[in-house]
Amino acid sequence: MDNQILNSKEQKRTSEEIYQQACNVLPGGVSRNTVFRKPFPNYAANASGIHVTDIDGVKRIDFANNMASLIHGHAHPAIVNAVIEQLYKGTAYTLASEIEVKYAQLLCERSVGFEKIRFVNSGTEAVMTMIKASRAYTGRPKIAKAEGAYHGTYDFAEVSQTANPTNWGDLDKPNSVPVANGTPQGVLNDVIIFPYNDIERTIAILDQYADQIACVLIDPVPHRIGLLQGTNEFIEALYKWTRENGALLVFDEVVTFRVNYGGTQDNFKVKPDLTALGKIIGGGFPVGALTGRSDVMKVLDPRESKLLFPHSGTFSANPITMTAGYAAMSLFDKEAVLKLNALTQKAIDQIQEAIKIADVPVSITGAGSMFRIHLKAKPPTTYREAYQTKEETAVVNELLDHLYFKENLIMINTCACMFSTVLSQNEVNKLADALLNGFRIIKPKLENLF
Amino acid sequence: MDNQILNSKEQKRTSEEIYQQACNVLPGGVSRNTVFRKPFPNYAANASGIHVTDIDGVKRIDFANNMASLIHGHAHPAIVNAVIEQLYKGTAYTLASEIEVKYAQLLCERSVGFEKIRFVNSGTEAVMTMIKASRAYTGRPKIAKAEGAYHGTYDFAEVSQTANPTNWGDLDKPNSVPVANGTPQGVLNDVIIFPYNDIERTIAILDQYADQIACVLIDPVPHRIGLLQGTNEFIEALYKWTRENGALLVFDEVVTFRVNYGGTQDNFKVKPDLTALGKIIGGGFPVGALTGRSDVMKVLDPRESKLLFPHSGTFSANPITMTAGYAAMSLFDKEAVLKLNALTQKAIDQIQEAIKIADVPVSITGAGSMFRIHLKAKPPTTYREAYQTKEETAVVNELLDHLYFKENLIMINTCACMFSTVLSQNEVNKLADALLNGFRIIKPKLENLF
Repeated sequence: MDNQILNSKEQKRTSEEIYQQACNVLPGGVSRNTVFRKPFPNYAANASGIHVTDIDGVKRIDFANNMASLIHGHAHPAIVNAVIEQLYKGTAYTLASEIEVKYAQLLCERSVGFEKIRFVNSGTEAVMTMIKASRAYTGRPKIAKAEGAYHGTYDFAEVSQTANPTNWGDLDKPNSVPVANGTPQGVLNDVIIFPYNDIERTIAILDQYADQIACVLIDPVPHRIGLLQGTNEFIEALYKWTRENGALLVFDEVVTFRVNYGGTQDNFKVKPDLTALGKIIGGGFPVGALTGRSDVMKVLDPRESKLLFPHSGTFSANPITMTAGYAAMSLFDKEAVLKLNALTQKAIDQIQEAIKIADVPVSITGAGSMFRIHLKAKPPTTYREAYQTKEETAVVNELLDHLYFKENLIMINTCACMFSTVLSQNEVNKLADALLNGFRIIKPKLENLF
Repeated sequence: MDNQILNSKEQKRTSEEIYQQACNVLPGGVSRNTVFRKPFPNYAANASGIHVTDIDGVKRIDFANNMASLIHGHAHPAIVNAVIEQLYKGTAYTLASEIEVKYAQLLCERSVGFEKIRFVNSGTEAVMTMIKASRAYTGRPKIAKAEGAYHGTYDFAEVSQTANPTNWGDLDKPNSVPVANGTPQGVLNDVIIFPYNDIERTIAILDQYADQIACVLIDPVPHRIGLLQGTNEFIEALYKWTRENGALLVFDEVVTFRVNYGGTQDNFKVKPDLTALGKIIGGGFPVGALTGRSDVMKVLDPRESKLLFPHSGTFSANPITMTAGYAAMSLFDKEAVLKLNALTQKAIDQIQEAIKIADVPVSITGAGSMFRIHLKAKPPTTYREAYQTKEETAVVNELLDHLYFKENLIMINTCACMFSTVLSQNEVNKLADALLNGFRIIKPKLENLF
């Protein structure tokens, strides 16, 4: 490890020292709960390509890529150079800028369903804007979403994201379970919960609120449900139901847009009316976007005599995010998508091999350049199947700690990987080897779980 | 104007041409309704210091500063250099970074009430997070806010922002008026509307929901109400009421933090429990923040055995925004705040002089480095007084068009200025002269209005 210790002459604080100070000014010492780690989080000193080096001098290979948002890894030269050029011209104006139009054109060309687009500042804002646009277009108050699906922190969108066996209720009519304390009952009443990929139960639930539902909100590969893809039949059934009942079918592709050139929706015959984007389309900068059918997006059009959905945002479509996003997505062309997905499939194959060698009850789900490892013999097919007990989570955390501290690999804390285009077979081999070691370490505990 | 035409050899598109293409991919051709302008918006080519130059070659003095978000004008060298240094180290990680702790310390030192802070990506997110934290802390569903006050696009926060004489109802009990079509009735039921600065009516309204109100949300200088400051008596009455009734007093200082070193709240004896920040604290990059009492902020602490308000964000506290914000706010020290406020007062004095010379029924409101011009003889004291009829708005727009097209000055479309530290007496003189010309042009129309 000696070569990983930076021999800086200036006095550097350790992560532990910084965290102690952080606890005085940040709740829990962190700005994002996702980076919280016991006994303390590490602080990044710098990052380049596939690597993040922390302030304590440890260099790790990054399979998390800031929660799936860096499709080309860190500090990609093409993005850095484009951003620097724009920096000297200003980062935001009370005027429009040409790059927002160029970038809107680039994104709209990726899918036939992307007729118009509006940029916002985060995935949370994108989903909120999509829900508000759906209500504005239909004049209806309710939304329907899947139990366990994560769609950001807008309270309507987060209902039942963390539902658990003590509160999730009957599968035929899952409870609307609040995530945050104090969530108004009115919010819970306006969010209808259904079990993902369960056509019969979902349609029966939707039918009960047929004339009140503005949109059915779907993540086509919901990470928190288990990173399992919506079936063709399920998506088509929802499409049909929304056509028959005057509702919109809207996709949250904030995470999943990476799956194909035009998003996961390329995998389905039917297309959503609206799509929320975020993560990789910012090129490493804060971003979100709502795109979809022109006639629906018209609710945002300030030229309309009666503007149904007045909406603005100080930093929306700022030229830095637009410049970085344009550079990133230009590089993530059809060929790059296919190449990245092939490498990811290679990783999955090698990890499957490691599972066999270690002889552990472990399975993998995923799509495109994303996968998630489950400490379950069979890949889960529903949120309730994928749900981890406290005991299972403890073993997952032990595996993640092994990978992070001993193997110097960064994964997402659900045991998921979100690949970047700068990864290569070399890192895939390291990942598979590291997981084999990890599986062997947790094997005795896994046997106790079952 | 010849010197303002760029003689570029490469073929450049005009703003009109870009806008035509923009209309194919953006609703109304714009990403933000605030930059919409008839017959078409201009596209910024570059900006530096006090100037924004559009793609058609016109250079304008900027008194809007991206809707009050650029406290040091455009492309300030200290910010640009700091950001470039960080760019090479990466823009976002699935780890924490030291600069978020340093910046949290810097901001928390500015006001005794800023005990803990959490960063988010926009003012909209900051206010949403503040409302959700208030509910999580109190376990109560409702919020109270002032008629006409703008607090971003979270639907609870935007209720009655655009209330008008046809729907605002009795002043003793103003209606909860939706901004977006399809706003759920549940949202309207959970937002209590009161008339700003009207102690008697406000307390009487709050008393009716005393045990259900999580927080009373206040912008201390609400721009859309008329950019008039909350009176000491009003703020103290709200403080007293919230203490007596188990509610929180929370300030939206997204725009108004610039007013003093520690925000507009420095002007009041009593302090809010929570404060939302945004705009200038991002140094030109997307930002928002929630700060306030440690015991309330604890609802966000992931170390708590029962986490009341789970909250994360992919781009929250990203090191680019933190770096830019740290540079900007370090430069905006006590001396810089006082100097900027003094220059702004000089501008107000000179514009008052222009009003006298032109002999027009015009008045000015504001605080610190912000002011707003009203086409009303007496400065309005309430939202309903400040409310502009269609006819008044048409005259305001004529004045703004004169300033923008003929005088090459950028103001906010409410006829407001948000000064930056790079402005000088020279620009103040130009502004006062330009307004004098503008007042003379609109004078005949003003006489018809009254």
